[in-house]
Amino acid sequence: MTNLSMTKKAELDFSAWVLIKQARIEQMLEQALPAANLAPNTLHSAMRYSALGGGKRVRALLCYAAAEMCDTNITIADAAASAVELIHAYSLVHDDMPCMDDDDLRRGKPSCHKQYDDATALLVGDALQSLAFEALSQPMLCNNTGLQANQQISMLNILAKASGSTGMAGGQAIDLASVGKPLTQAELESMHHLKTGALIQAAVLLGAVRGSTTQMAAVRSYAANIGLAFQVVDDILDVEADTATLGKTAGKDANSNKPTYVTILGLDLAKQHAQQLYEDAITTLAPFGDSAQRLRELAGFIMQRSF
Amino acid sequence: MTNLSMTKKAELDFSAWVLIKQARIEQMLEQALPAANLAPNTLHSAMRYSALGGGKRVRALLCYAAAEMCDTNITIADAAASAVELIHAYSLVHDDMPCMDDDDLRRGKPSCHKQYDDATALLVGDALQSLAFEALSQPMLCNNTGLQANQQISMLNILAKASGSTGMAGGQAIDLASVGKPLTQAELESMHHLKTGALIQAAVLLGAVRGSTTQMAAVRSYAANIGLAFQVVDDILDVEADTATLGKTAGKDANSNKPTYVTILGLDLAKQHAQQLYEDAITTLAPFGDSAQRLRELAGFIMQRSF
Repeated sequence: MTNLSMTKKAELDFSAWVLIKQARIEQMLEQALPAANLAPNTLHSAMRYSALGGGKRVRALLCYAAAEMCDTNITIADAAASAVELIHAYSLVHDDMPCMDDDDLRRGKPSCHKQYDDATALLVGDALQSLAFEALSQPMLCNNTGLQANQQISMLNILAKASGSTGMAGGQAIDLASVGKPLTQAELESMHHLKTGALIQAAVLLGAVRGSTTQMAAVRSYAANIGLAFQVVDDILDVEADTATLGKTAGKDANSNKPTYVTILGLDLAKQHAQQLYEDAITTLAPFGDSAQRLRELAGFIMQRSF
Repeated sequence: MTNLSMTKKAELDFSAWVLIKQARIEQMLEQALPAANLAPNTLHSAMRYSALGGGKRVRALLCYAAAEMCDTNITIADAAASAVELIHAYSLVHDDMPCMDDDDLRRGKPSCHKQYDDATALLVGDALQSLAFEALSQPMLCNNTGLQANQQISMLNILAKASGSTGMAGGQAIDLASVGKPLTQAELESMHHLKTGALIQAAVLLGAVRGSTTQMAAVRSYAANIGLAFQVVDDILDVEADTATLGKTAGKDANSNKPTYVTILGLDLAKQHAQQLYEDAITTLAPFGDSAQRLRELAGFIMQRSF
């Protein structure tokens, strides 16, 4: 599907990089999350159950890749990647609840409210959101990392806006309101720009916090394109993949009468659209040579996870 | 009930101060919340419904009073008071949901999930929490306010910890787990120290951000005592007041078989306990003379709201 022409060696390098960063974010989240034997034990166990050991960590990978492009210190990238993954984990827990998408399966395991109960899932999501802001507001983050305190405040502000009613939570609200309604492609893109795109954009911008204005503008544009591509691929996966491959219930969106790129464009045009978004993302990185290689490879990774 | 011997004039002054600050925090929240006609409209309407026009704003008042004691600039106090009230508002919306306390009434109106629906209430709480961190991470907050950027980061960290699994959300989890179980007074205090106390302490500490180490230590102790007193009074109110006075369902805790100070100590001892906590709170403020007058009066205010 993608036009990436990676050499075998570069491909291997990227796969190794992904594995290293996935292990790294797992370790960071492990450290950030309270121990399961710390009171309240059930809440802490459920937080760990929901945030650890699953997912491709695409947002963390994007954050680390942007950090490599912009020479952002790894300690800052660790905190940013953790914060973004904690927000993502909270959103999954709440989205799966009966009053929202009512999904019993997440990352191949029972979703949080099935494994525990609804009240615990509600508090898990709430506490994971708080923990994201706790991770990113560590007072030591400016020590020997080159980060200015006002840049750290800016990172917190970016994350808060990306998470809130004009970001991810707002996109979720539009998504809920759109069930069973015909949407234009523009309306669908606007919804996904908030629901998925805002946090993906935040992941990249936080990683790029030490970048120049030009670099920040480029990664912002890259993130907008790749964020939408990610969602188009998700919609294609919902139709093409099976539940075992997805680790969540397949055909869910189609069955729940939600508008998707596939229902609006058809499968072939949806694939073409994803490809165009991918190419636009790659184009914005052209001036940055090798420093942007990981971001390019990640764009391919996002495309390849499906077909 | 309290031993406050305020002159008529001081009493009038305090009442006027409360009204002025209540109007001020209402205006600040009005500005911080997205307009109801901004998309997604239903989410924004529901956020405004839940956060505006209700409550005594005790946490905001404590924040403003601590700011007056410690000469914290009013712009900083505004942001801190808004953030704390937004966290409080989110917690009420989620606490009222069917899977938690299942309460239909809040501040004399239908609770958020009754006025809207469960999914909207879930997203309202989520988005109000994000908005709290957005309000406190405004990049301009250090401009001409005397606040250092690292102090602002510290404020964000205090709020995040007070809200999360070792603060308010953790207290809520312990509360849920304790329904129908016998608790000792120590266990009950530990639960309330998190559930209500953590955010009340954060309110005071954020207001006192520009204070000296001595002032911070004193307000921390004040907050611990007054936070518990607040909860003891709440438990007494649950038994003594009627639904119309409370603006929420009276007798709720007793009926749901939750341990309270009244069930553990009995009504008379609970009242004595509240009085002792009040007196301890006042004692810690002794070295600070007139500058701590509002905090003293607020301690009285918290006691007087009941009996």
